[in-house]
Amino acid sequence: MVVKNQIKFIKSLQQKKYRTQYGQFVAEGVKLVGELLESDLKVKQLYGTEEFLEQNPNISAHRISHSELNRMSGLKTPNKVLGIFEIPKAGTLEFTDWILALEQVQDPGNLGTIIRMCDWFGIRHLLCTPDSADCYNPKTLQATMGSLARVNVVYGDLESVIKDSGLRAFGATLQGESVYDMELPDTGILIMGNESRGISESLLKSLNQEVGIPAFGNSKAESLNVATAAAILLSEIRRRAIQK
Amino acid sequence: MVVKNQIKFIKSLQQKKYRTQYGQFVAEGVKLVGELLESDLKVKQLYGTEEFLEQNPNISAHRISHSELNRMSGLKTPNKVLGIFEIPKAGTLEFTDWILALEQVQDPGNLGTIIRMCDWFGIRHLLCTPDSADCYNPKTLQATMGSLARVNVVYGDLESVIKDSGLRAFGATLQGESVYDMELPDTGILIMGNESRGISESLLKSLNQEVGIPAFGNSKAESLNVATAAAILLSEIRRRAIQK
Repeated sequence: MVVKNQIKFIKSLQQKKYRTQYGQFVAEGVKLVGELLESDLKVKQLYGTEEFLEQNPNISAHRISHSELNRMSGLKTPNKVLGIFEIPKAGTLEFTDWILALEQVQDPGNLGTIIRMCDWFGIRHLLCTPDSADCYNPKTLQATMGSLARVNVVYGDLESVIKDSGLRAFGATLQGESVYDMELPDTGILIMGNESRGISESLLKSLNQEVGIPAFGNSKAESLNVATAAAILLSEIRRRAIQK
Repeated sequence: MVVKNQIKFIKSLQQKKYRTQYGQFVAEGVKLVGELLESDLKVKQLYGTEEFLEQNPNISAHRISHSELNRMSGLKTPNKVLGIFEIPKAGTLEFTDWILALEQVQDPGNLGTIIRMCDWFGIRHLLCTPDSADCYNPKTLQATMGSLARVNVVYGDLESVIKDSGLRAFGATLQGESVYDMELPDTGILIMGNESRGISESLLKSLNQEVGIPAFGNSKAESLNVATAAAILLSEIRRRAIQK
């Protein structure tokens, strides 16, 4: 039996304001919660349906009914388990490999997809400007498929990191030099801009180089989705390292 | 002034059932509607706010109020214009270049993102199994950014197309050979499977080859989003052609 106030608290964590206030976030679903439980994240509360508890006898969770889960869930079709986790302190950025940076990428789904691909491509550090989507947004979390536990997401000022890191800064732009032909160093910062406006004028000045993905043939397409473009660039960076 | 029945009709087109019944679909927003108006698609009705009409004096549209647009729109924040278009007859598949095929890709956003990248990479033909997401789903359309007008999306049986096309069939799988090392022909079919289950057992038997994207280092990520993976594979296919 879950009291009304608990449900209200859990629902409030759908909003960034309350996540920041309480320093907690909510994660849902067997796959996502399972990945987070195996990470270093600290779980505050775990709620599971009878089915979940039967299928996961080693996990201790409050037993809740389907209707209770429905009431606390932010999903259209809630999936057996919901966990409240502590938002960890952001780790320190390390500059021994490529890192990815996002300037004002605002769609939570894009951010989640990008975190998932960072995990795949072994990109350990993701820097986001403070006006980017929140990595603890439920839509972001769903898209990460649990990868957030393995990628250090830091919110901070991009221009000062470019300066302090000593890394070459590559910004993805439509007019950038083809990534296929470009020489790529062993370490660097790859920067992706906002979904509509791309990288801001002021940040463009801090870049060492603009990198682009050539459209093919007589394509009339105007651009690629930011997560799509990030995927292609990261793949090309890693291909070079693998084939070196 | 828009009558209640018109609004009801327009709202019904949010559902595939009614899109199929009436052979029409709804598109919203200045960018998307603008792209579709410039294509060969036949527009049935166009509704614009006063602001839209002032900014686009060459486009003839029914003048509607903001509140009328709100009532007919499927968007949280409606954007000045809404058009009803005829669903065209699907074009014929041509096998003179690479084509992309989706087996039961179910998320409308993924499908839209994939259509957008097909446009970018000059992939003119996209085959979807009938149980895939609908390319006229409003969420798909929004994600295409207008690219649907330039990509021929066909719903049909994948196995028979593989047989009839004479093309080599490459299926994206987790255990597939690295795309970075693989020899790629000038033409072929690239097949992406369902978001959770990947390519079905029965379809796997029809493939000539399985292709994969290597994870980097000691990555513990389990997979990539289907649109992300498609982007990386198409980029690699086009890079080879460009650098040949």
